[in-house]
Formats: sequence, C-alpha cells, structure tokens
Amino acid sequence: MATMRLVVSCPDRPGIVAAVSRFLFDSGANILRSDQYSDDPTGGTFFLRMEFTIEDGRRLDLVERFGLAVAERFAMIWRLWEVATPKRIAVLVSRYDHCLQELLWRWRRAELGGAEITMVVSNHPDLQGTVDSFGLPYHHVVVEKGRKTEAEEEMVGLLDGNCDLVVLARYMQILSGEFLERIGVPVINIHHSFLPAFAGAGPYERAKERGVKLVGATAHYVTEELDAGPIVEQDVTRVSHRDDVAALIEKGAEIERSVLARAVCWHCEDRVLANETTTVVF
Amino acid sequence: MATMRLVVSCPDRPGIVAAVSRFLFDSGANILRSDQYSDDPTGGTFFLRMEFTIEDGRRLDLVERFGLAVAERFAMIWRLWEVATPKRIAVLVSRYDHCLQELLWRWRRAELGGAEITMVVSNHPDLQGTVDSFGLPYHHVVVEKGRKTEAEEEMVGLLDGNCDLVVLARYMQILSGEFLERIGVPVINIHHSFLPAFAGAGPYERAKERGVKLVGATAHYVTEELDAGPIVEQDVTRVSHRDDVAALIEKGAEIERSVLARAVCWHCEDRVLANETTTVVF
Amino acid sequence: MATMRLVVSCPDRPGIVAAVSRFLFDSGANILRSDQYSDDPTGGTFFLRMEFTIEDGRRLDLVERFGLAVAERFAMIWRLWEVATPKRIAVLVSRYDHCLQELLWRWRRAELGGAEITMVVSNHPDLQGTVDSFGLPYHHVVVEKGRKTEAEEEMVGLLDGNCDLVVLARYMQILSGEFLERIGVPVINIHHSFLPAFAGAGPYERAKERGVKLVGATAHYVTEELDAGPIVEQDVTRVSHRDDVAALIEKGAEIERSVLARAVCWHCEDRVLANETTTVVF
Amino acid sequence: MATMRLVVSCPDRPGIVAAVSRFLFDSGANILRSDQYSDDPTGGTFFLRMEFTIEDGRRLDLVERFGLAVAERFAMIWRLWEVATPKRIAVLVSRYDHCLQELLWRWRRAELGGAEITMVVSNHPDLQGTVDSFGLPYHHVVVEKGRKTEAEEEMVGLLDGNCDLVVLARYMQILSGEFLERIGVPVINIHHSFLPAFAGAGPYERAKERGVKLVGATAHYVTEELDAGPIVEQDVTRVSHRDDVAALIEKGAEIERSVLARAVCWHCEDRVLANETTTVVF
Repeated sequence: MATMRLVVSCPDRPGIVAAVSRFLFDSGANILRSDQYSDDPTGGTFFLRMEFTIEDGRRLDLVERFGLAVAERFAMIWRLWEVATPKRIAVLVSRYDHCLQELLWRWRRAELGGAEITMVVSNHPDLQGTVDSFGLPYHHVVVEKGRKTEAEEEMVGLLDGNCDLVVLARYMQILSGEFLERIGVPVINIHHSFLPAFAGAGPYERAKERGVKLVGATAHYVTEELDAGPIVEQDVTRVSHRDDVAALIEKGAEIERSVLARAVCWHCEDRVLANETTTVVF
Repeated sequence: MATMRLVVSCPDRPGIVAAVSRFLFDSGANILRSDQYSDDPTGGTFFLRMEFTIEDGRRLDLVERFGLAVAERFAMIWRLWEVATPKRIAVLVSRYDHCLQELLWRWRRAELGGAEITMVVSNHPDLQGTVDSFGLPYHHVVVEKGRKTEAEEEMVGLLDGNCDLVVLARYMQILSGEFLERIGVPVINIHHSFLPAFAGAGPYERAKERGVKLVGATAHYVTEELDAGPIVEQDVTRVSHRDDVAALIEKGAEIERSVLARAVCWHCEDRVLANETTTVVF
Repeated sequence: MATMRLVVSCPDRPGIVAAVSRFLFDSGANILRSDQYSDDPTGGTFFLRMEFTIEDGRRLDLVERFGLAVAERFAMIWRLWEVATPKRIAVLVSRYDHCLQELLWRWRRAELGGAEITMVVSNHPDLQGTVDSFGLPYHHVVVEKGRKTEAEEEMVGLLDGNCDLVVLARYMQILSGEFLERIGVPVINIHHSFLPAFAGAGPYERAKERGVKLVGATAHYVTEELDAGPIVEQDVTRVSHRDDVAALIEKGAEIERSVLARAVCWHCEDRVLANETTTVVF
Repeated sequence: MATMRLVVSCPDRPGIVAAVSRFLFDSGANILRSDQYSDDPTGGTFFLRMEFTIEDGRRLDLVERFGLAVAERFAMIWRLWEVATPKRIAVLVSRYDHCLQELLWRWRRAELGGAEITMVVSNHPDLQGTVDSFGLPYHHVVVEKGRKTEAEEEMVGLLDGNCDLVVLARYMQILSGEFLERIGVPVINIHHSFLPAFAGAGPYERAKERGVKLVGATAHYVTEELDAGPIVEQDVTRVSHRDDVAALIEKGAEIERSVLARAVCWHCEDRVLANETTTVVF
C-alpha cells in the first residue's frame, strides 16, 4: 500500500469533487484526508488536496488515467506525490544559526513534513561545525563584491537537480531572478518582520524606532521582487518599551525559527497551494 | 436558488464522498464549501459538512432522495438546513450582562451565524431594561429555594418548541437532566475558566490562589455532568501577579464574551459536529 | 484620604527615586504602586509613575512643595492627578458603531480607567439612537465637501475646555494640525491595521490582496502626519485564505474595539507616557 | 564597576523605597532598573528588585551596611547577586531531548539569563552524545526499581554544592522531599499541560480525550506535592480535532521548550520572587 497526495487547482465549476472522488473510488483508493477551497464558486479558482492510500500495483495506472480522465476535462493544474518519498531540502544560510538549527533539529526528530535536508550552502564558513555534527555536506560559496553572478553560478551547480526546495534560513544575499529561474524549485525565505511592515533591511531597528508593541516574522515564497512573494505563514510576539533592539532580535529569533519551520513543514506536506500572489494553506 | 447545508456523520469507509458529491452533482447542486474529517480512516467515524446552492424547486426532492439513495446505504446521521432559515436562540442569563450584551449586539450586526435571538429568560429582573432596548421579550422566572422543579417547569413552557438553541450566558443555576431532556435542543454554556482547570464555582478566585499566568473561558455543550460536556471553543488571556481577582474577572469577561459568541456563531452555521464527548469544528 | 498619581519624565541621573520617594514619605504619602523606566541610565530619559494615598489636607501643600523641592532640581516634566477625578472623554465617530459601543459599554461597567464619556460628535446622524440610549449628548457636525474648516471650527466650539481626551472611534475624517493644536488635549485614534503595515485607506482590502495570515489594529496618538503618531497598543488575530474581505472586517472589528478600549483605559489611568515618537506603557 | 541585583521582600509599610533608594544613592550606586509590587499596601507583602552599578571597591561595604541599616529595620528577606557571576545550572533529563536542546542552545547563544549549564544528569544513557557535543559532563545515574533512594543519594553527591539551580527538562522521575531538601537549591520543572488542568501523568492523552482546543505547558518550582509548586510561566497553543495525540505532543513540545527556557532565564535574572504558593515575576 502506498500513501499518496493529490494537489489540484482549476477553474471552479460543478462536478469537480464528484469526478475526482468517483475516480479515486473506482481506482480502489481510500481517502484519508481531503481539503478543498474555492475563492469564488462562480468563476473563481478551485483548490483541492487529497491524501489517500492505494495498492502499489495500481499507482502508475492511477497517474496515467487521472491525467486523461479527470485533469484534462477540468483544465487542472495537478501533481501527485508519494508520501514516503522525502522532499530534498537545500538550506542557504549566512551567519545567524537559529533558523538553521531549528530545521536541522526538526529534521533529526522527523518533524519536518517527511522531508530531508541534503545540503547546506553558505556565503560564510562560520556554521561548518554545526552542519558537520549533523553529518551533512556544507558548501562554502564565497560571494565577492561585484562577483555575485559567479557565486550564483557556483550555487546553481550545487543545487540544480539535487533539491526539491530551497530554504533561505536568514541568507543575507538577494538572489537574482535569473538564479531563481535556473534552479527551478520553490524557494522559501524567512523575513524578520510582520510583512508588509518593515520590508527590506533592519526591521528590528525600525520596529524599535516606530515603537511597535509586537514584532513578527514572515515565511514567504521568494519572487524577484524583494519581500513581496506569496506569504506562507506569519506570527508575532509581544514586546514593550523595555525591549531594546537586542531584546527584539532575541525575541524575534524565536518567532523566526518557529514560523520558518512551520512553513517548510507545510510546504513539504503539500499543504501550501499558490493562488496568484497569495497562498492557500490546508 | 436556495443555499443549503448538509451535515453528516457515519462510519468511515471508501466511497462516501464519491456518493455524496455524485448525488449533489446529479441533483444540480453547486457546492460552495466542503469540509470533511475522519477520526480514523480504518474503522472510525467520518464527518462531512457541505454548503451548496440548489434550485428552489428541487429542494424537497433532494431531501427525500438523499435519505433513500445515500444516507441509508452509509448508515449516516445527517441533517439539512437552509441557510436563509434563522436558528432561534433563547438566552438564559442571571445578573452579569457582558455575555448577553455581546450576543445581542452581534445579533443586531447580523454577525451571529444567521441566527436570531427570540427571547431572554432570567432568574433575576436586573437585565430587563437592556433586553427591552433591543425589542425582545424578557421572561423573569424566579427560582425559589427548594422550588427549582417548578421554575424549570415554567421555563420548559417558554422554551419548548420556541427555540433551536439555548445559550447560557452566565446563567448561574444548574439545570437538571430532566430539563435538558425536555427542551430537546442543544444547550451551550460559557464557563469562566480554561476547562478542565477550575471546573465548578469560583474559577477566578481559584485561579488567583493557584497563581496561574493565563486565565481563560470555555464554551461547551451542556450535559448532565457539570462542566463536562463537549467543548466547542476555548481561549485564554495573559495575566500577572499584579492582577487581583477583580482584574481577572474584568480580563476574563472579555474572553468569555468572545469565546461564547464564536461558539454560538459556529453552532448556528452548522460547523460544530458532536463526536462522542468531543466536537469536530469545521 | 485621596489617592493620587504622579507621572514624571526627566533626564536620567542618580538620585531621582531617592528624592521622590523621600519627599513622598516625608509628606505622609503611602505608595500603592510605582513603575519606572530609563531608556538609557547614562544620559537617557527617566520615566516614573507613582500611585499613592495622602491625607486630604496635605494635597495642595504636596503639589506646591513638589514643584519647588524636587521637580525643578531634576528638570522634571510632571503632572499629578487625583484618581477620584474622572477624565472627560469626547468620542468622535462616523458610521461604524463597534468601537463606540465598546467604549460606551465599558464606561457603563466602570471599566474605562475611571473616565467618563461626556459627549459623542459625529459627521453622520446614524448613531444618534445608540448614544441617546446611554443618556449622552450627540452632536451631529456635518462635514461638507470643501468646508472642513467650518466643521472643525464647530467641533472646537464643542470640545474646547469640555474634555481631557478625544477618542476617534473609527472617525473617517482627517483632522488638521490646526484643529489638533486648538483642542489642546491628547487624541487617540484606532487604525484598522497592524501599523506601519497598511497605513492609510482600505487596510482590510489591502491585507486580503497581500495574503497576510494575521490582521490587526493599532491605537495611537494622533499627530499631523497620518497614522504616524506614537503607538499605545496593538494586537492581531489569525486569518486564513478562507476569510474574504467581509470576514477580515468582522474579525478585525473585534480586535479594533479591544485594542482601542485598552489604550483609552491605560491613558486614563495615566499609564501611557510619551517618549518622543514612541510610548512608555506602565 | 560592578552591576548588581538586589531582591527584597518584606511586610509592606511606608518608607521602604525611600530608605532603599536613599541608601543606594548614598553608596554611590546608579540604579539601572527597578521594579516593585505590593500585594496589599495595607498589611501585605512588598517586593522589590533593583539593578544598579557600583564601584568595585564599595561592594563589600554595601552588603554589610545594607543588612545593618535597611534590611533589619524593615524585616526584609533579601539577597544581592552580581550580574557577572553566572548561576550554575544542573539539568536533569530522561529520554526526551527537546527541552534539553533548547536550554543547551540558548546557553551557547548566551540567551539564558547569564547562567551557565555545568552538568547534565540522566536516568538514561540516550542523550550522552548530544551533551558531549556541547562539551559538558553527562552523568548517567541509573534508577533501579525499588532503589530510588540510592539513585537520589548518588545525585545529591553530584549536585550538592555544584549548582545554583536544578532544571527538570522532562525528567520523568518524582523526586523525594528529602532529596529536594538536601540539594537546597531551587528546582524548576516543566509540566506538559496548562496546570492545574491535567496534573500528573499522560496530559496529552487526557487532553485529546477531553477535546480541549488549546494545549499548554507550565514551568513551576518543584515542591513535595506533585505539580503543585508555584508557577513561573505558562503558555498555550491552539489545536483542533484534526490533531491526534502525536500531533499534540509535537505542538506541545514547542510550547514546553519555550516556556521552560523563559522560566529558567527569568529565574537566573533574579526576576522571579516567591510569594507563598505563587510567584511575582518582574
């Protein structure tokens, strides 16, 4: 028996669920969990995520026939993923270790949505020891002033074909649109503010200056426009006038790592569906 | 066109969603929202809530045929509710006005899940004026020492057949099992603690004594056993050593009214399904 | 016996607390509560709030001597307030009633920091009935297109000398700098977003568009620059892709009213001290 | 210059702050932060925490004179602590690593209130490797059935005189009153529920069974009575019917580690003062 996930988005119209569930039933699949959402039942987009078990021998057949019998008819964007297959994550990091630590640790506890971390890439040598102790390869890719293209070239060489997700765990370099295109897999970033407040550099300093009463963090997919990609998860924590910038950084770090870990986890469980500039999170 | 809700629970087995969605599709229904949950895909209970539109002329037919064609086959406990039909709420209250106020106010703003409040019953005369200003009947049912049965008899006369839900908005009398049975509709109570902590009387006093750092409130269905019915919603708020019992009561009041309002709202939107001693909230 | 509050800010240097507490002790005052904060013990600003009881006969003497013996020596900005004297609040409102309702309701429950609401001013007639039922004067000041100066003139006539605080409970007009100067008392506004995110118009619409996972509200002192004044309090609530703009507005309304009520309450308890563009909240 | 903390509790009466602040001023101390609280200004207990700088040469003198000139007069329970002196923490642990990891990690980041972890003691060998990688001694003390006294004897030998705080980071053995008395330092435990709900064994299982909508964790000082000691910190996280016991354990683990880390941090910063069966947390 294999456990699989089907993720679908398509123009909403009557009959989608009937068709999909009938198809799965006829294929001998047993649905474990199903979530659906329509952003407008009259003319909007329909989103569906199903988790089901199926006999090993019927898997290939299922994929072929689903494309033919259902997906085409409803103009579906769809994918299937076997739960037992771990998604491969490459983590990009600079000098701050808290987000990296959290991911490594959850990975070791098998609390990362079934994913595995396969490499860590950094523009600094600082976290080599940490990564070594988890038995993972650490690639130090120097980003010299004015030679970012060369660095990205080197990184593409490392990442291309070797990961299903790139996670920026406080990676302090801006990635070019060309780079994003070439690696061709989703990239999740953690930004250390409650976006869209304090997009860009120095959010904690600016939060202190503005005198906000909460600081937050935002995990989002990376697009070419800085800090503007679809948001996966956000959270905040209460602060007061007593908290100086160092205290905001310390309190914020805890939010950053839990928000990033949740976002990565949900992504790897195929629970995050893109809806133009926003996300549907089942 | 009518908008309807179908709520189902039944033993889980393959084919339920396929059968229901196929049935609705064939009936010309257009599904607006669907939520489902199984507490154990192999032998557990399956829960389903669907919201759909259907032509007025096909409604009765739908109900009849659903019972025959689908419900029986899967041994479903099911109900259908037309969204346009308001559920009638009777509120029972004693002297505290905050929960009552919140419900009246949300009702006036049409933020109470489509329900309407039809009467307020109290064992005290204090809140007559408040209720009058909303144009609602206020029934003062005196509960004399040792004559609770007579009071309950009078209340049954008021409630029986005249409401779909009874809400205890800080009603300070314990209702007998016989009373609950006779009124025959669900009863939601707000308890002023984070159950199961501080069940029974004086929760804020006991919270202060125990030195907890959060106080909370719990909305639950009323069963014969005090404060032990299925929980619909809970929430908490932070307190500190500086808060005396009066401050806990004031901070708690805000949580009580929002928790109760949410629970009533969700119930009236048919989003709360009983699962033995717990609830499924879609 | 009178209960009084002393609020002080001054350049930080050794000896301030010793001098103040010695002075109060010598005056026969009994300190009930004391809070202090320094944003930099070497050269920053020191903030102090003390609540104490004192014999009625010694109050005037205390004020005179404090100015002479303590305040001058430390270059203090200071004020004293007798707790029994209610602060007079004028509420400005447009058409939304939720924030107004919350304030009126807490006032009636004596949960508004000892303050009393003395009038409601609106640019619309809609909420006359609500305000009447609380026995308060309702002034309808029409703001005609291009004649805002005249409207503000009329409002100054109503407010000047008749209130200690102006609260904008979703008042949808921008007040001129001249108006703010002329009324001469603090003005607290509730903005329906987590500032600095979504400053300006349509925050819920923009929140939906951006796909944020939390919506919030911010209570701040009004300055000439729109939505940029010192923040008193903020809070957020979780939302999801399922919440459309109407749902964000409904969920946000609950945060707006609790955030505004807390801010007004704290202000009236003299717990909010200005620190340039931010606040200290004891 | 040394930075010191003074922590005081005594019967409340006029003049305490005047006397302490005057004493510190005369000693040349510069107050950095001061917090105070009285649980009843007429006849209750007064609590004070002050952080101040003082010249190295005047420290000893300060301690001697404070006892004589101030503490005795007001019947103070008091202590002084130099901030630069790290408190030594011994962590007791069984098999779960999440709380231990969080403490070790914060210690390495210097985010543990200035404390240092000096040893880890466990009744299991499992976490030896984790502790080794932080360069800390790991003592495996086997607790054989019926021979708990011998195990406690061995632990007293390890702990006595070698630590200022014992932290039970999910240590699954109940410690005897005699043991607590002999080690003579405070002991902080993390309990995996929102106490007083689900005291004792299996809180997540019982939370699932009861159908609560939030799960929590509680850090408290250990007393002879199980799970009944003064609470330092608590927090909760939202769960739903979808979360099975394994999910509650995973979500709860995140709350457990942050609640325990905060409590340990605050304790080591001398911010937690005992008030009979509760705590004052500045």
